[in-house]
Amino acid sequence: MRVSNSYSNATYRLYDDKADFHKKAQGIAVGLTVGSWTELPEAAKEQMQKHLGQVVSVNAHEPEDAQPGERYADITIAYPNVNFSRDIPAFLVTAFGKLSMDGKIKLIDIEPSADFLSAFPGPKFGVQGVRDLLGVHDRPLVMSIFKSVIGHDLANLREQFLQQALGGVDLIKDDEILFENPLTPLEKRVEACISAAREAELTTGQKLLYFTNLTGSTFQLKDNAKRAIAAGANGLLFNVLAYGFDALAELAADPDINVPIAAHPAMAGAFYPSRHHGISAPLLLGKLMRIAGADLSLFPSPYGSVVMPKAENLAVMEALLTPSLPQKTAFPVPSAGIHPGLVPLIMGDFGPEVVVNAGGGVHGHPGGSAAGGRAFRQAVDAVLSGSTLEQYAVHHEELRVAIERWGVRTS
Amino acid sequence: MRVSNSYSNATYRLYDDKADFHKKAQGIAVGLTVGSWTELPEAAKEQMQKHLGQVVSVNAHEPEDAQPGERYADITIAYPNVNFSRDIPAFLVTAFGKLSMDGKIKLIDIEPSADFLSAFPGPKFGVQGVRDLLGVHDRPLVMSIFKSVIGHDLANLREQFLQQALGGVDLIKDDEILFENPLTPLEKRVEACISAAREAELTTGQKLLYFTNLTGSTFQLKDNAKRAIAAGANGLLFNVLAYGFDALAELAADPDINVPIAAHPAMAGAFYPSRHHGISAPLLLGKLMRIAGADLSLFPSPYGSVVMPKAENLAVMEALLTPSLPQKTAFPVPSAGIHPGLVPLIMGDFGPEVVVNAGGGVHGHPGGSAAGGRAFRQAVDAVLSGSTLEQYAVHHEELRVAIERWGVRTS
Repeated sequence: MRVSNSYSNATYRLYDDKADFHKKAQGIAVGLTVGSWTELPEAAKEQMQKHLGQVVSVNAHEPEDAQPGERYADITIAYPNVNFSRDIPAFLVTAFGKLSMDGKIKLIDIEPSADFLSAFPGPKFGVQGVRDLLGVHDRPLVMSIFKSVIGHDLANLREQFLQQALGGVDLIKDDEILFENPLTPLEKRVEACISAAREAELTTGQKLLYFTNLTGSTFQLKDNAKRAIAAGANGLLFNVLAYGFDALAELAADPDINVPIAAHPAMAGAFYPSRHHGISAPLLLGKLMRIAGADLSLFPSPYGSVVMPKAENLAVMEALLTPSLPQKTAFPVPSAGIHPGLVPLIMGDFGPEVVVNAGGGVHGHPGGSAAGGRAFRQAVDAVLSGSTLEQYAVHHEELRVAIERWGVRTS
Repeated sequence: MRVSNSYSNATYRLYDDKADFHKKAQGIAVGLTVGSWTELPEAAKEQMQKHLGQVVSVNAHEPEDAQPGERYADITIAYPNVNFSRDIPAFLVTAFGKLSMDGKIKLIDIEPSADFLSAFPGPKFGVQGVRDLLGVHDRPLVMSIFKSVIGHDLANLREQFLQQALGGVDLIKDDEILFENPLTPLEKRVEACISAAREAELTTGQKLLYFTNLTGSTFQLKDNAKRAIAAGANGLLFNVLAYGFDALAELAADPDINVPIAAHPAMAGAFYPSRHHGISAPLLLGKLMRIAGADLSLFPSPYGSVVMPKAENLAVMEALLTPSLPQKTAFPVPSAGIHPGLVPLIMGDFGPEVVVNAGGGVHGHPGGSAAGGRAFRQAVDAVLSGSTLEQYAVHHEELRVAIERWGVRTS
């Protein structure tokens, strides 16, 4: 429920063993907007009304037999847009600045008004645009990550890139911990990798996007992005949470940064896993990434070693793909621990609009990285053709070897 | 313990009921640097050695009778500086990017090498510089916050400012939720407040710093800061965590931004309060704020409604004031719930280098905001003169009234 288009909502889960949740909600609505209300003279109230936050709903979970620490309420507050500028820092500081420190409280969702949202062009490409760039419309995309990058020189990186590309992956991304360095500086790295992409294209006949890691000082990010693009980069990887959502929003809104941006979740674990504090994963890695303009958003898959529960994963996906936002949809990229034997599960859980993203699952293939990429493509084809992986593997050697190596997971 | 000046350390508290903590530490040291080690050929090992992370220490807390969830280890890893550029995003993404999502793990401290630290000029003023600006060297400073700002016009804001200033406070800061708005736009707000400061100075004979809230789009922050300064601002308030530490570092390093910066902890509660996740308060609001260049760092006091345990508070203070960092020391500003009756406790807990910061404790004074400021100054003077507040209040009316209103807390 929204009070009106002049308000943007925030929903919190607030744990408290004793609090009067309605009173608490009222305190938030007043405290984070006009500051005080009951003591205001009537004339002032009239003038202040349009700045006053409103309690939209209080859904208390307070069973008689609640154990200590189990009693909570989901509280939705409507904040007048007139109180904050139309940027993400302003809204987050308003709705979860001081409040983040006030007890056991987690920001679980926001519902900005259409007016607020209209300030955000969002993903420049989105799911459809990335598909158009690649000319691939009928299957999930496959992304791979370098095996290791630190300490390697350009020739080594180029060769790693080439092998991945030869396997038929659609997207290759830098490691998020590859920063500006003398061995593989930004522009030279882009040139080497893009030349490898062209070389592979002669064999595979398919296009490929390379997401270069965009790093460095905040106020140089736009310049660095443009340098990478001038050198040939056709994608950017960005550690959004190290710089804030506004940096992403402004990169995405810049007409000269005309390549898709993949948002890396580095540091996200400082925010979402706690039950009592922080920002929920679907908001942090789903809705906010999309509003700010990520064309792809990476997050820990529910399958691997770095896990996020499946329900949360699917809620991140929902936030990236729901038609209820005006911004283009963004690709969910469940990551970590992915091997070809998981592809039926991934496609079952996520549907067709997903990027299957692997590192070890590509490079650890006994036949090498190119074979690893092919095994993933074959696994995707198997599912689309209605075969089991085992059936399809009979005539697809790389998939057969991958299954032998990692098995097939069905749940 | 540091491996050498070529490495920067990070310390984590890792909870796990079963893990082999030494093996886990080894996995972090390798996984977040060169990626893999044992399988490398010997020749490659030689070349990669300088990029390989090192386990500095593993202090396990694993009593025989540990309850589930109680078993943990503090693990310190040394990361080769050669792996990352000398900026905070690069180090945090290296040390706590992916790792933040890998189980119950909290980043509790970092110990960057002298070489890394040398890239950060830190606070331009620091404790001594802020004291010099004010000409106050012999007592804690007193800061006050506007009562309410949203929906108020320039005349109202100016009057609020004047009343606070007349009370003899040293510092006045904007509310962190005051963004660019038609009623009190940045430059006009600065002009109004600074003119009120000058007016008050004629009465009080003392100097005053006004910390204007620096907001807006990331890539406009420097321009906005310079506009505020050109309009007369002699301080800036900044919601660091909404923009990232690098934005602060670059603002602080800019020679044209020649006023002190106060770091607001908005959104800090998304990071520090969880036992199992996030970033510790002393690191987040202490060490990182200081390295990045905050002259003052605000954080929730242990006395008020928005609380942080006292031991954590004192650890934040220690990080801001320790001589073991090359950057200038920064003022600790324990905030929220402060009234004059707490001043002896604050000065006892924090010592002389502290800013006593109050909102309600100034404006809620029965004699008004100016009387509220005077009560704080009297409380400080009382402690310095060796009196109890009650003794001093006999001849200091504003303090007497404040004590009547809020009482005196001695522990």
